[in-house]
Amino acid sequence: MQIAILLFDRFTALDAVGPYETLSRLPGAETVFVAERPGVHHNEVGSLGLVADAALADVTEPDILVVPGGPGQIAHMDNGALHEWIRAVDAHTAWTTSVCTGSLLLGAAGLLKGRRATSHWLALDQLPGLGAEPTGERVVFDGKYVTAAGVSSGIDMGLALAGRIAGDAAAQAIQLGMEYDPQPPYDAGAPDKAPAEITAALRARSRFVLAVEE
Amino acid sequence: MQIAILLFDRFTALDAVGPYETLSRLPGAETVFVAERPGVHHNEVGSLGLVADAALADVTEPDILVVPGGPGQIAHMDNGALHEWIRAVDAHTAWTTSVCTGSLLLGAAGLLKGRRATSHWLALDQLPGLGAEPTGERVVFDGKYVTAAGVSSGIDMGLALAGRIAGDAAAQAIQLGMEYDPQPPYDAGAPDKAPAEITAALRARSRFVLAVEE
Repeated sequence: MQIAILLFDRFTALDAVGPYETLSRLPGAETVFVAERPGVHHNEVGSLGLVADAALADVTEPDILVVPGGPGQIAHMDNGALHEWIRAVDAHTAWTTSVCTGSLLLGAAGLLKGRRATSHWLALDQLPGLGAEPTGERVVFDGKYVTAAGVSSGIDMGLALAGRIAGDAAAQAIQLGMEYDPQPPYDAGAPDKAPAEITAALRARSRFVLAVEE
Repeated sequence: MQIAILLFDRFTALDAVGPYETLSRLPGAETVFVAERPGVHHNEVGSLGLVADAALADVTEPDILVVPGGPGQIAHMDNGALHEWIRAVDAHTAWTTSVCTGSLLLGAAGLLKGRRATSHWLALDQLPGLGAEPTGERVVFDGKYVTAAGVSSGIDMGLALAGRIAGDAAAQAIQLGMEYDPQPPYDAGAPDKAPAEITAALRARSRFVLAVEE
C-alpha cells in the first residue's frame, strides 16, 4: 500500500506530518513524499525543511494521496501540470485526501465537484467556487474523497482513515502508540470556540495566514 | 527568542513537529533544527527526512531547547558529547523541554534529578533510574523543565508553553490558526483508555516501539 504525500514550497508542516504519523504506521504501508522538484521543501515559516524523495513522474499509482495545505498552495491553483498529475493518480487511488487548504488544490484539479468537503476554517468560503459544498465537520468522507479541516485535523483524519482501511483495533493501536489523548490547555481551536476578538483578528489577517490573492 | 529543536536519526517526526508548529508561531521566534551532524535526519520509519541546518557547535545559547524522542534516542543514552551540549545550552535556556522519550535524554544528561517529569507511557518506568519522579500528567512543568508524554503530546506542551511565554491570547491565536480542536475518532490514546488487549499488545512489543535495550 503506497501512500503519497505531496510537498511544495511553503507547505504547513503539521498538515503533512499528521497524516504521515498515523498512516505510515499501518501494516504494509510504504510512504513517499513527492514533489514537482525532488529534494528539500521548506514550510511557510522557512525553518523546517522536509525531503521529497520522489518526483511526480516517479509516483504513478499510489493507493492513497495526501495533499497538505499551507500558504504555498496558492502558487499552484493554476498549475496545470500538477493538477494533471493529481487527476492521473486519483484515477488509481483507493483514497484521495487533503488537509487544510490542500482541499483547494483537489478542487482546482476538478476532483471535488458536487462533493461535500472541508478546508481550513478561513478557506471554507473558497470551496463553492471550486464546485464543492463546504461542511462544518472536521473530517469529511465523500466516497473515496476525504478532506480535513485546518492543520492539526490531519491527525484525526489519519486515524479515521486508518480505521476504515485496517479496522478499529489497528487504528486504536496507532492512537495509543502516539499517545493521542489530546488535552489542549485552551478551548480555542475553532472559530466559534475561541474568544471572538481572536477569531476576528485572524479573519482580518487571513490574507496573510492563507496567502489568498485578491 | 531562539528555539532549538534537536534531531537525531530515528527520531519520531511528530515529537519534533508538534512543538515546532506551535512554538515557531510565537512573535519573535526563530526556530532552528540542530544535530550532531547537520543535514537530513530520517525518522524511525525511514521515509521522512527532516533537515538540521545547524551543528551543535552552532547553537550555544538558545532560549528554548526541545528534545524529541523516538527509537533513535536509545543510541544517545551514553553519548557524552551530546549530554555535554545539552547541559551547556541548558545553562542558558529559559525553558528546557522534551517530548516522548526525549525526557530520557534530558535525564541521561543529568537534568531531571529530583524533578517531576513524564515520557511516553511505555517509558515512564525508566525515569526513576535517571533520578526523576514520573507522573501521569500529559504535560509536566517543574521549574523551567517541561516534559510531555508520548508523540502527540508535544502539541499540548507547545501551546501550554506558548501561553506561559506570550500570554493566553497569543497561545489561543496559535491554537485557532492551526485549528486544534481535536476530535479523535476513538478514545484510545492512553493505556487506561484503550481496549485492554491493545494496551497489552503494545506493552508486549514495547522493546520494538521504544528500542529499549535489555
